[in-house]
Amino acid sequence: MASGAPRTTSSSAGYAKGQMRREQIVEAAVAAYADLGYHGASLRKIAKRVGISHAGLIYYFPTREALLAAVLERRDVEDAARGGLPQSPGLGVLRHLLDVAAHNQDHPAIVELYARLAAEAITPGHPAHGYFTRHYRQVRGYAAASFAALAEAGQLRDGVDPETAAAALIALMDGLQVQWLTDPGEVDLVGPLRLFLQQVLLVPVDQPQ
Amino acid sequence: MASGAPRTTSSSAGYAKGQMRREQIVEAAVAAYADLGYHGASLRKIAKRVGISHAGLIYYFPTREALLAAVLERRDVEDAARGGLPQSPGLGVLRHLLDVAAHNQDHPAIVELYARLAAEAITPGHPAHGYFTRHYRQVRGYAAASFAALAEAGQLRDGVDPETAAAALIALMDGLQVQWLTDPGEVDLVGPLRLFLQQVLLVPVDQPQ
Repeated sequence: MASGAPRTTSSSAGYAKGQMRREQIVEAAVAAYADLGYHGASLRKIAKRVGISHAGLIYYFPTREALLAAVLERRDVEDAARGGLPQSPGLGVLRHLLDVAAHNQDHPAIVELYARLAAEAITPGHPAHGYFTRHYRQVRGYAAASFAALAEAGQLRDGVDPETAAAALIALMDGLQVQWLTDPGEVDLVGPLRLFLQQVLLVPVDQPQ
Repeated sequence: MASGAPRTTSSSAGYAKGQMRREQIVEAAVAAYADLGYHGASLRKIAKRVGISHAGLIYYFPTREALLAAVLERRDVEDAARGGLPQSPGLGVLRHLLDVAAHNQDHPAIVELYARLAAEAITPGHPAHGYFTRHYRQVRGYAAASFAALAEAGQLRDGVDPETAAAALIALMDGLQVQWLTDPGEVDLVGPLRLFLQQVLLVPVDQPQ
């Protein structure tokens, strides 16, 4: 830390320490799911990796599902940072989603975690229900605003409703993941997405080289 | 049974009786999931509804997941029968899938069962993994043959690969279900499907009145 950094009060220092510990736990959970699989990575094993007690972990994440949702939230931040999610809606956002899908093909463990937890969390009251409700609304919102901006620019095919196209795009990403996880040789995560985008857009989906 | 029906040997009579019992169990399971929800309908409760012992039920369906897969197989048969799945691939098959999606909107219990089990069954060795592998290959196959027939008739947009479009269509149906179950007011199961089909086809998706 730079010597000129402001001195923190003890309560904000406690907050910062808590945040750091949360981050450590989420990082350990990401690694544990990648190494041990969805069913192998128990809270106890994750606590051991962080070097805290099971009770200590429970203080931060009362359930396994709450920790899983935190892992997915962190992944959303990483996905947005990698390659750079454009600040304003438009073609760049849709291309970014294609890049996320391509990245997912090399990261089956997190794709599996997402697909399993999304299906479990459909029930209100599930610890990850809030995460998925927000996540879906947010990505549908980005995508809908992007389709609307393209329509405005005359780059969306006539008759394509931006909100309907947004729900379709996100559904396509998610549904492909389940087919791909079930039968990896038969389906890929990118081709059908690119097909959909190319059919609704009047501009090339792929980046000019 | 007509008096002229052939007399069965005792082993085929036993087989028929076993089939009937299986059918009874699957029917009771369908009703139990609709009444009690995914987590409420235990094997014990289902056995009670059929009037057999828990051990008797286990003889037919060794795990809860195997019974759930049988419920979904039966639903596939019902979906194909309702409205009539056309014998030959083409526009009729795609319209049939739209009808299935519309029917699903009034049957959230079975949609929930399908979405949850699909995500759980991605692992080889899960009792429903075989069902989902077959199911996906079969519906993708029907859909791909239908897009190919439309391409042959000059009714598919240029550049649309039938197999890619098929994977996309099934992914779209499945992904929409999870969004719809998570946040029912925000998404519908039919609109995005119709949008996709209308974008890739050069003929109207909706039946002429």
